[in-house]
Amino acid sequence: MRIVVTNCNTTQEMTEEIVRGARAAAGPGTTVSGLTPAWGPASAEGWLDSYLSAAAVLDTLRTYDGPPYDAVVMAGFGEHGREGVRELVDAPVVDITEAAAHLACLLGRRYGVVTTLERSRGQIEDSLETAGVARNCAAIVGTGLHVLDLGDEERTETAFLAAAERACAAGAEVLVLGCAGMTGLQRVVGEKLGLPVVDGVAAAVKLAESLVALGLTTSRIGTYAEPLPKRRVWGRPEPR
Amino acid sequence: MRIVVTNCNTTQEMTEEIVRGARAAAGPGTTVSGLTPAWGPASAEGWLDSYLSAAAVLDTLRTYDGPPYDAVVMAGFGEHGREGVRELVDAPVVDITEAAAHLACLLGRRYGVVTTLERSRGQIEDSLETAGVARNCAAIVGTGLHVLDLGDEERTETAFLAAAERACAAGAEVLVLGCAGMTGLQRVVGEKLGLPVVDGVAAAVKLAESLVALGLTTSRIGTYAEPLPKRRVWGRPEPR
Amino acid sequence: MRIVVTNCNTTQEMTEEIVRGARAAAGPGTTVSGLTPAWGPASAEGWLDSYLSAAAVLDTLRTYDGPPYDAVVMAGFGEHGREGVRELVDAPVVDITEAAAHLACLLGRRYGVVTTLERSRGQIEDSLETAGVARNCAAIVGTGLHVLDLGDEERTETAFLAAAERACAAGAEVLVLGCAGMTGLQRVVGEKLGLPVVDGVAAAVKLAESLVALGLTTSRIGTYAEPLPKRRVWGRPEPR
Amino acid sequence: MRIVVTNCNTTQEMTEEIVRGARAAAGPGTTVSGLTPAWGPASAEGWLDSYLSAAAVLDTLRTYDGPPYDAVVMAGFGEHGREGVRELVDAPVVDITEAAAHLACLLGRRYGVVTTLERSRGQIEDSLETAGVARNCAAIVGTGLHVLDLGDEERTETAFLAAAERACAAGAEVLVLGCAGMTGLQRVVGEKLGLPVVDGVAAAVKLAESLVALGLTTSRIGTYAEPLPKRRVWGRPEPR
Amino acid sequence: MRIVVTNCNTTQEMTEEIVRGARAAAGPGTTVSGLTPAWGPASAEGWLDSYLSAAAVLDTLRTYDGPPYDAVVMAGFGEHGREGVRELVDAPVVDITEAAAHLACLLGRRYGVVTTLERSRGQIEDSLETAGVARNCAAIVGTGLHVLDLGDEERTETAFLAAAERACAAGAEVLVLGCAGMTGLQRVVGEKLGLPVVDGVAAAVKLAESLVALGLTTSRIGTYAEPLPKRRVWGRPEPR
Amino acid sequence: MRIVVTNCNTTQEMTEEIVRGARAAAGPGTTVSGLTPAWGPASAEGWLDSYLSAAAVLDTLRTYDGPPYDAVVMAGFGEHGREGVRELVDAPVVDITEAAAHLACLLGRRYGVVTTLERSRGQIEDSLETAGVARNCAAIVGTGLHVLDLGDEERTETAFLAAAERACAAGAEVLVLGCAGMTGLQRVVGEKLGLPVVDGVAAAVKLAESLVALGLTTSRIGTYAEPLPKRRVWGRPEPR
Repeated sequence: MRIVVTNCNTTQEMTEEIVRGARAAAGPGTTVSGLTPAWGPASAEGWLDSYLSAAAVLDTLRTYDGPPYDAVVMAGFGEHGREGVRELVDAPVVDITEAAAHLACLLGRRYGVVTTLERSRGQIEDSLETAGVARNCAAIVGTGLHVLDLGDEERTETAFLAAAERACAAGAEVLVLGCAGMTGLQRVVGEKLGLPVVDGVAAAVKLAESLVALGLTTSRIGTYAEPLPKRRVWGRPEPR
Repeated sequence: MRIVVTNCNTTQEMTEEIVRGARAAAGPGTTVSGLTPAWGPASAEGWLDSYLSAAAVLDTLRTYDGPPYDAVVMAGFGEHGREGVRELVDAPVVDITEAAAHLACLLGRRYGVVTTLERSRGQIEDSLETAGVARNCAAIVGTGLHVLDLGDEERTETAFLAAAERACAAGAEVLVLGCAGMTGLQRVVGEKLGLPVVDGVAAAVKLAESLVALGLTTSRIGTYAEPLPKRRVWGRPEPR
Repeated sequence: MRIVVTNCNTTQEMTEEIVRGARAAAGPGTTVSGLTPAWGPASAEGWLDSYLSAAAVLDTLRTYDGPPYDAVVMAGFGEHGREGVRELVDAPVVDITEAAAHLACLLGRRYGVVTTLERSRGQIEDSLETAGVARNCAAIVGTGLHVLDLGDEERTETAFLAAAERACAAGAEVLVLGCAGMTGLQRVVGEKLGLPVVDGVAAAVKLAESLVALGLTTSRIGTYAEPLPKRRVWGRPEPR
Repeated sequence: MRIVVTNCNTTQEMTEEIVRGARAAAGPGTTVSGLTPAWGPASAEGWLDSYLSAAAVLDTLRTYDGPPYDAVVMAGFGEHGREGVRELVDAPVVDITEAAAHLACLLGRRYGVVTTLERSRGQIEDSLETAGVARNCAAIVGTGLHVLDLGDEERTETAFLAAAERACAAGAEVLVLGCAGMTGLQRVVGEKLGLPVVDGVAAAVKLAESLVALGLTTSRIGTYAEPLPKRRVWGRPEPR
Repeated sequence: MRIVVTNCNTTQEMTEEIVRGARAAAGPGTTVSGLTPAWGPASAEGWLDSYLSAAAVLDTLRTYDGPPYDAVVMAGFGEHGREGVRELVDAPVVDITEAAAHLACLLGRRYGVVTTLERSRGQIEDSLETAGVARNCAAIVGTGLHVLDLGDEERTETAFLAAAERACAAGAEVLVLGCAGMTGLQRVVGEKLGLPVVDGVAAAVKLAESLVALGLTTSRIGTYAEPLPKRRVWGRPEPR
Repeated sequence: MRIVVTNCNTTQEMTEEIVRGARAAAGPGTTVSGLTPAWGPASAEGWLDSYLSAAAVLDTLRTYDGPPYDAVVMAGFGEHGREGVRELVDAPVVDITEAAAHLACLLGRRYGVVTTLERSRGQIEDSLETAGVARNCAAIVGTGLHVLDLGDEERTETAFLAAAERACAAGAEVLVLGCAGMTGLQRVVGEKLGLPVVDGVAAAVKLAESLVALGLTTSRIGTYAEPLPKRRVWGRPEPR
């Protein structure tokens, strides 16, 4: 099966890193392709970025003309757009935010999210709440790192461990990597902390594979019915 | 003071109708200007439309070059983008969804929302929940009408009254017009039903005027800090 | 329009201070009259005081014989009586507790209340909950000051700033003055703290003006129907 | 031990009926005295009545000069005042609303309340919520009867059975008599319905006896500390 | 009346201690018999123990052949089985977890639970939640003591007082002994702390007596209908 | 990898049917073994059965001496024991109740559960709530069928479709088979209803495979630490 993974920002290197993480998680029969939006923010860090990103990701999928795919994984922790993609495509759609939380719920009584900037906490909180998996979230903690700083592995690891401690003090027994750019960090910090750490990209790939294997896809009878046919303009007529 | 009212869709006639409603509610010293996005959906009816609309409205305000304004009213019932606009502009921002709910809470123990299509209910539910005013919402009921059908006043009124009955049966004592395009309907249906009916556009104008008069604007110390400076592309480089 | 502001206690000086705050917030066409109950507690600090105050305020409005008014503002942060006044009078009724919370929700993701004594926290919590605006309240913090101590401005300010810090640590991005007697403090502490501070009296005046301007008043079809005609005795037959 | 039962209204006959119900429930060593407020509403049916009643009941206990008592039972279903009495007296205080709910939770998964007028539902809802026992309440249903109509036993029973059916359809497995004036009805309707019916007066007497027997009384370390000494006037200086 | 108290573990000494506590709380006409399961864990400390205990207690009551009883008290704080016993027996059933919470709600605005090991907190949380009395629980705090260590009174008291401080800092105004083995501790720690301390065993005895006195027992019309007749094997055919 | 699937009852035919469903869902490299408890109820229909079943399943896994396994799937919809198994075994544990809900949340805004007897609804409700996935559950509806009646396919299908209609009317957009014995029904009813239907057994197998593939297992740092070593007797010394 083919899974398309959409990056929420325009940074090609991040798409590549996410795809590496997704491939590491994918089963033998799964092909993973990454999609980088042609427009949007260079990184999504805040509400404005998130809404810009949501439209750009929708446009990317709307105009996709590659080989047919079986599922979409949306890689943007706490970013918007999930429900719109569910309307747009026929294949099942899994967002890494909800995916990480779903698996985390199976591994401990309460989970914690360690993310980049403190300002992202609100979006993550709302995303978990509306996905229906916020109840067992004990804490969402920021590391103070910017998305594009995550390349510095040592600094990232140190900041992650400090934030993890706060999450555990709040009751978390399982941790979630709160940014697609943290993919790969789960094993090393998991070992140091002695608890399971869930990467949303990997989680979403496995959930997408699961849905495809079971022949399940988005319900069309209610809120996620196909978009109504109408005139829509995707981005400004004359680009600036 | 000047209030800028953003329509969530590209339909100029709807902007004009909304501005009429806003002006009818505005105080003597208030000037109302309407903004129609240069791109986005012709009407917002579903999640995909809503996310497209959010980015388009943000872009419209980002590139605004008219006279300075004191507040923004966002006219799109249940549509996304509110938090992004709070990051973007320094003036206070009031979304018609939350505005209607805030006033409705003052008028009865439980309120109900009467909206257009059933499929919009989920978005309205999430919008009220994250705005912090969902607790006293007894019901969100669809009329089955499309946004662009609302011009047919008789049909709209009939459908509204039928839906209102269901909302009242669920405990609503106050009603909210669940679409910017219903502006103007509140008085006639309020009289027929014998209960207060709140129009979100009018409510938002009064709340915006209130915030401006009290010298209050969005807190910048947390989730609504200014967007970080970075590269962002607003819409596809070559429009299709 | 005329707004009647009811003090929740019998201290005339406090009524005057509240009226000053209300007038500072009122629009040009608004007349504000203050009402001091002829009975009740000298200040409301606790549940017994609050219930005594509720009956006294109801009696004050029941026997009011001044010029007709268009709205009632109830000035008693966290005090009872709001729903009874909604039954009693035909004009819209706005309580300063809910009013401050409604505006605060528009200015940040979470708000905090800074009040007088710790013992008042429970009442405020219940008042916000039943008004339907508790969801986004991050904290209610006491300053340890008595209502009638608030005249000492320097001490009040110092205590307020210390309590504000605790509220912000709990996630508040906006603050609410948790006592009618703090009216006037909002500007100075707001500047020192760098965040919006909402005064309930001012907020209630603007909300009351908004409702009147929009022709909206309390729904009579449900819980706030007029009181049933019956024998009621307001206070002990022979006063002690 | 002596339990004082306070009626929430000035109708002496109702006090007597309540006392009869309380005595029927009381253990062999318990003496029950009824207190009828010297002022307040003839019956409590709505928010205004409820707040008036709360002050009157507080005044009644404040000026009580009978033999010492060991506990207070407050007989007014859904009426205010509970927390004020907890501040005022040293003995434990049990309100019939919460009492009925506490016992009902032990008897089935969900309980329902059958009360008098529909307009009382909101007060009961708030009372259960703030008492901490609302979670398992499946429904609060009105019979349409006035408090002072409850003397007509046949009519009351018929109305109760009809309302009970609605409560059971909503999931109630246990019923609660939602008015002090219904005391005595529990056995006959319980048999007809084949499920347990809890009378709040009886429940409160047993809970009060339990607390006294265990030497437990209200915590004074927080919200229910003693009222602060200050000037309070209980009712208008010259009665009208 | 006769109350049967079931210990949740196989330790006879603990049954005896619980029975002593129950008898100290029981009224003059009440006989208390203790039941120790013939199988199960020596003490219940964790989920596995709790589920093993639930089946063992059910089996104990199922095969009980002593004198008829009027009520069952289940002594295992936070342990499972409550709903199964309600199906099995006709008499009312009171679990000490819920019982303590019910009485605690009457004594202060928020209560705290002080238990043995931290690992028990989750079970207690779920038990209070599903019993419908979790809302006013401010904190569940562990002392770090094992159930079978509670015999060391001095150490228990010291650990209890330290944990109590944390519960009060979280808002508790009333405390609950979070283990049947703590029975008897309530008076001494209550005096030292200056607040009411509720013992679940005593609370459950009084609630059971109350239900019996009022002729109330478990509703059979819904979730607690009698177990269906079918083949059941209680424990392994060949014991190991 | 090897997944062990535990039936919650002693009926060997049902284990076989569940294993068939599990194998149909399992990936190519997965071996599925079924375990039937040597004791417990012939079917689990109610709280007593559920607790008996929980202990029996724990005992079955405790004394398991087959080939090593990588994950446990617990097949008993709404049955107890999940947390105990997480303590007991080192491999990840997935219960079919939570598994179905996790996948259903990805497929629609609200899901509904169609189960056997109405009396099972409470257990399912509690199970979803404590697993952290109840928020998006719109309804739990009974078909009136007994577990051991499910062999009659036509009757089952008819009853399922009728119940499904009620779930959809309550807002469900996705359905969950609320009994392990319904495994296999998902495809036919899904097609008739035009919406996704999730089978918990299949969902749990995919989630278990996902956790194993990602190297994730239960957190041992908190509530699911290993059971403490102590004396435990599993079932009555002399079997009856």
